[in-house]
Amino acid sequence: MHVAILGCGQLARMMALAGIPMGMTFTFLSENGEDTAPVDGLGAVVAADACLTAEELFAAAGKPDVVTVEREQCALQPLQKLAEHCPVHPNTDAIYQCQNRQREKQLLINCNVSHTPFVSVASASDLEVAVEKLGFPMVVKHTEQGYDGKAQWRLYNTGDVENFVTNAQFKLQSDEAAPYVAEPFMNFDREVSFVAVRSRSGEVRVYPAAENVHDNSVLLHSLAPAPGLPQALVDQGQASIRRIMEHLDYVGVMAMECFVTSDGLWVNELAPRVHNSGHWTMHCGVASQFQNHMRAIAGWPLGSTELSGAAGMLNLLGVELNQIEQLDDNVALDWYNKSVRPGRKLGHLVLKDESSASAQTRLLTLKDKVYRK
Amino acid sequence: MHVAILGCGQLARMMALAGIPMGMTFTFLSENGEDTAPVDGLGAVVAADACLTAEELFAAAGKPDVVTVEREQCALQPLQKLAEHCPVHPNTDAIYQCQNRQREKQLLINCNVSHTPFVSVASASDLEVAVEKLGFPMVVKHTEQGYDGKAQWRLYNTGDVENFVTNAQFKLQSDEAAPYVAEPFMNFDREVSFVAVRSRSGEVRVYPAAENVHDNSVLLHSLAPAPGLPQALVDQGQASIRRIMEHLDYVGVMAMECFVTSDGLWVNELAPRVHNSGHWTMHCGVASQFQNHMRAIAGWPLGSTELSGAAGMLNLLGVELNQIEQLDDNVALDWYNKSVRPGRKLGHLVLKDESSASAQTRLLTLKDKVYRK
Repeated sequence: MHVAILGCGQLARMMALAGIPMGMTFTFLSENGEDTAPVDGLGAVVAADACLTAEELFAAAGKPDVVTVEREQCALQPLQKLAEHCPVHPNTDAIYQCQNRQREKQLLINCNVSHTPFVSVASASDLEVAVEKLGFPMVVKHTEQGYDGKAQWRLYNTGDVENFVTNAQFKLQSDEAAPYVAEPFMNFDREVSFVAVRSRSGEVRVYPAAENVHDNSVLLHSLAPAPGLPQALVDQGQASIRRIMEHLDYVGVMAMECFVTSDGLWVNELAPRVHNSGHWTMHCGVASQFQNHMRAIAGWPLGSTELSGAAGMLNLLGVELNQIEQLDDNVALDWYNKSVRPGRKLGHLVLKDESSASAQTRLLTLKDKVYRK
Repeated sequence: MHVAILGCGQLARMMALAGIPMGMTFTFLSENGEDTAPVDGLGAVVAADACLTAEELFAAAGKPDVVTVEREQCALQPLQKLAEHCPVHPNTDAIYQCQNRQREKQLLINCNVSHTPFVSVASASDLEVAVEKLGFPMVVKHTEQGYDGKAQWRLYNTGDVENFVTNAQFKLQSDEAAPYVAEPFMNFDREVSFVAVRSRSGEVRVYPAAENVHDNSVLLHSLAPAPGLPQALVDQGQASIRRIMEHLDYVGVMAMECFVTSDGLWVNELAPRVHNSGHWTMHCGVASQFQNHMRAIAGWPLGSTELSGAAGMLNLLGVELNQIEQLDDNVALDWYNKSVRPGRKLGHLVLKDESSASAQTRLLTLKDKVYRK
């Protein structure tokens, strides 16, 4: 079973490390001169050159049995070319829907999924409508750019609106999607995510929901199961991601990030791929999201997503590798083979415990130890 | 952290796959033109050429921070050379003790560990002593050759003894060890094994004992914890392997295979390395024997060896890779990248369940499925 992955970062690395033991081999397709160090030694790395024909690209990718992606912000053209020769999972339409916040919102509406309110913004007058409907404070997000909190603007008053209008690029996207969406600044109690996998035969398995804590808009740590999340919200989230995957005829792992407020669960964002908030699934006795993604796209039976006890994940952001310190306290370590830069995601730690409460205590202790200065 | 492993088989493969995520890189030292397919792509492969000086071998091995082995039947000379430049774990003396059944028996005696009775056999008259002391049936084993039941002879009567004497090579080993040991044919109820890890700082952790079932002297499946093994025998086994490791100042993973009879626990064999009967430790929420071996030899803190629930392991012996069949029933798969030959160890499956009873039922169902003809 030969697999081509579009992307060469840590998610591609961990997919490969999950697939190799199951008899898979890999080719990695790089875009825009991206850093390929995380996949060094795990397979051939080939540039996804736009000039290649479908046949040439398929051959360069090692004639894969299946193609997948590690990110949604990628060129769809190489995937469309490869789809002429072999399955691409998730399918390019699913990726297309999730590439743009406006399309993603429409997808949530079509699937009857509770989502954060929004107004599409393609002009100054749209923004006036948004102010009227949503009030201040408001967040304006670029529909296609930005992750980890980038390409987002918080508007607190009419002065901020004027500044934004002055600097904004109101040019419509090529497919006439508005370039921005405006959302209310959600007064949420907590953020949770649901990670699920759907097989080629349509079986869906959902991992326990994780509670995620961000630092400066970057995920810092996750805890699963999300402590004390009401069963009604768990059920709602699981049913929602299931509906979305079925609607898209999705194959592989998908993640759904949500806000929890006193009014309920609000889906904020979808990721058509394995996701940082699912890294806790490694080393804790379930089939990891990486293993299950590879099993799903290969057409193999899925592995267990049922966790006994609790698991915690701590991202290693901009800290040097130090196994003696970081592996303490029974944790497992996954390092991404990247050079150290401030704030960069370089690896993560996973710990397992009997209960959410004890896992959380250990997670916070570990965080203090890793980030002590 | 760069690691050199002497050996290029599946154990080296799984050690590397456990070490890479923790930031390790690898060089594999091959002996006698062995098959290196299992470690393809996981690091450089270098012949452990006897002509190389210590400096040359150390350089060829990529100037490792630490050296380890995947088998005890290896030349010690390359390890002794490498030990001039970096730590070798387990130490060469520990490997030396376990390379020869007579030395191993003496080690068990020195450590006050209950072992199968034996008589060293270097001549026909030694064999007469053995018959007198042990009676028939009796097993004569070569002290240095043989694994998976090879180089062993079962003697049922004086005719068998005469045949054996006629064909035997009674030449003493170079270090004057007898070439054979004779043991009674143990009338055991079951076989269990203990796998333990000892850190550089002397911390010992023992995994739950596994019950092992062999087919034609080759391990077919393991179940952990060994169902219904009396706590007194668990305690005895754990204390025994701890004493042995401490006696040898051992660093890394060691396995101890035992017979259980109505009279108690009898150590049959030691393996100074990760072991097939410990493969169940992968994918079930403990730090696997491979991960813990790498953590130990690197001088990093150990991971958990405490299993919640139960785990089963089924070897894939001479069967073609078929993920659709083999991954069914929630199992995990590790394939060794070797060519298929009858009876050859090609991979294994691991399953996890709530209890030993349910894990055993699923294991036997899976075995019937994989080996149905």
